[in-house]
Amino acid sequence: MDRRAEFKRWKAQSLSKADFSRKGCVDEDVVELVQLLNDREQFFTTSSCAGRIILLEQDMDSFEVQKQNCCWLLVSHKPCVKDDVVVALKKANGDAILKFEPFVLHVQCRQLQDAQILHSVAIDSGFRNSGITVGKRGKTMLAVRSTHGLEVPLSHKGKLMVTEEYIDFLLKIANHKMEENKKRIERFYNCLQLALEKETITTNSHPKEKNNSYKKKSNPGKAHDKCITEENDKVLENDVDDDPGISVTIFPEEY
Amino acid sequence: MDRRAEFKRWKAQSLSKADFSRKGCVDEDVVELVQLLNDREQFFTTSSCAGRIILLEQDMDSFEVQKQNCCWLLVSHKPCVKDDVVVALKKANGDAILKFEPFVLHVQCRQLQDAQILHSVAIDSGFRNSGITVGKRGKTMLAVRSTHGLEVPLSHKGKLMVTEEYIDFLLKIANHKMEENKKRIERFYNCLQLALEKETITTNSHPKEKNNSYKKKSNPGKAHDKCITEENDKVLENDVDDDPGISVTIFPEEY
Repeated sequence: MDRRAEFKRWKAQSLSKADFSRKGCVDEDVVELVQLLNDREQFFTTSSCAGRIILLEQDMDSFEVQKQNCCWLLVSHKPCVKDDVVVALKKANGDAILKFEPFVLHVQCRQLQDAQILHSVAIDSGFRNSGITVGKRGKTMLAVRSTHGLEVPLSHKGKLMVTEEYIDFLLKIANHKMEENKKRIERFYNCLQLALEKETITTNSHPKEKNNSYKKKSNPGKAHDKCITEENDKVLENDVDDDPGISVTIFPEEY
Repeated sequence: MDRRAEFKRWKAQSLSKADFSRKGCVDEDVVELVQLLNDREQFFTTSSCAGRIILLEQDMDSFEVQKQNCCWLLVSHKPCVKDDVVVALKKANGDAILKFEPFVLHVQCRQLQDAQILHSVAIDSGFRNSGITVGKRGKTMLAVRSTHGLEVPLSHKGKLMVTEEYIDFLLKIANHKMEENKKRIERFYNCLQLALEKETITTNSHPKEKNNSYKKKSNPGKAHDKCITEENDKVLENDVDDDPGISVTIFPEEY
């Protein structure tokens, strides 16, 4: 079977399967984006999370083992208020940690070139920890990741280590990060739409796709001619390449 | 110029340049690893940080703009005690944030296959946010990244929002993460050594490299036959693929 047919078969198989996430469906804020990708024959998504505030509890006697000995006290894909967290904390006997986890997306790509386009869009939209994985047999995956997180221990052995005032302060920051994250997802959607249009015009090898095989977003005005990353994002991110605190040698451009 | 010669030229150029990091040299804990990579003709490192605890201050009126309006109150590549942070916090008038930033490394690779080997080693060693970047002209870079961070706001407009007891508690966690991070770097070094040996034996195309063109680590006993990621790490990490809270479709293995 050639690569194209094989990819098509895997895509059909993957998309026909049940959603095994705890939630059981794609998050509202990324439905359109996931659809945009899955409508293109060279991509399919394998996992996604729009971004969330979570409060989890773990047993600190073995605090290496977060996943095994932890339970979720609160998960929210919307902004939270202090009382949401205070109420959830009452259930904690171990060590509770509040996290903001930004948008994350895994996309299987037909070939490396497809992953490169997507990667470039992700970086330009502010998701600077994105990267490609290429398996031994050529399975090519793009992971879209941000550095825009928060991870704050709140209690130890059931004892709250911070004040309610602090929780309130912390949630303002987490909610702000959530807003910022949402803007980046929109930017990613718009940049992606432009990149795919451009690619379709350039290659012109799949005329079917040219005829709008994916939906136009309801607000096409947002898509501008050149996809520009806001300066804010560049400095907000924490990648090493422009961090003077990291041992770095400059690499010539455009190599 | 063919690709091999071109890569060699860029490597020489890159390694001969000054280290532009604030510190001006490679962190002690990764010197051997950086050397191991740079001794191989198919790799060179472009930036690295062994992992650090940092306390930074930013102006929250424009808190998008971390990099532009922030200053570093404390940077330590060694474990910290409460008083280090308390003293440093006295200098803060804005919003101070304590972070633990784990090991990060960027390695330029001659070809995709080299990046794949390195990527596989990174994942197996617990650095699950690692990923490959392939530029338009084929520049291939591997970024080694962990999810093993910490980011905690401590003060707002110069006012401390937490107790000293909390700072003490927080530093115990940060110091523990630093230890864990160090173990992973060692594991990465050992896994890499094994993978490179194996590759040299398999390809056997560069007999010069076979004759120990890189140094053996002082404790070869640590390198075992198959590089196994400790179970602890797998569950410590927060990657989405095994997180039931994220919308996910299962992808068939070994595709």
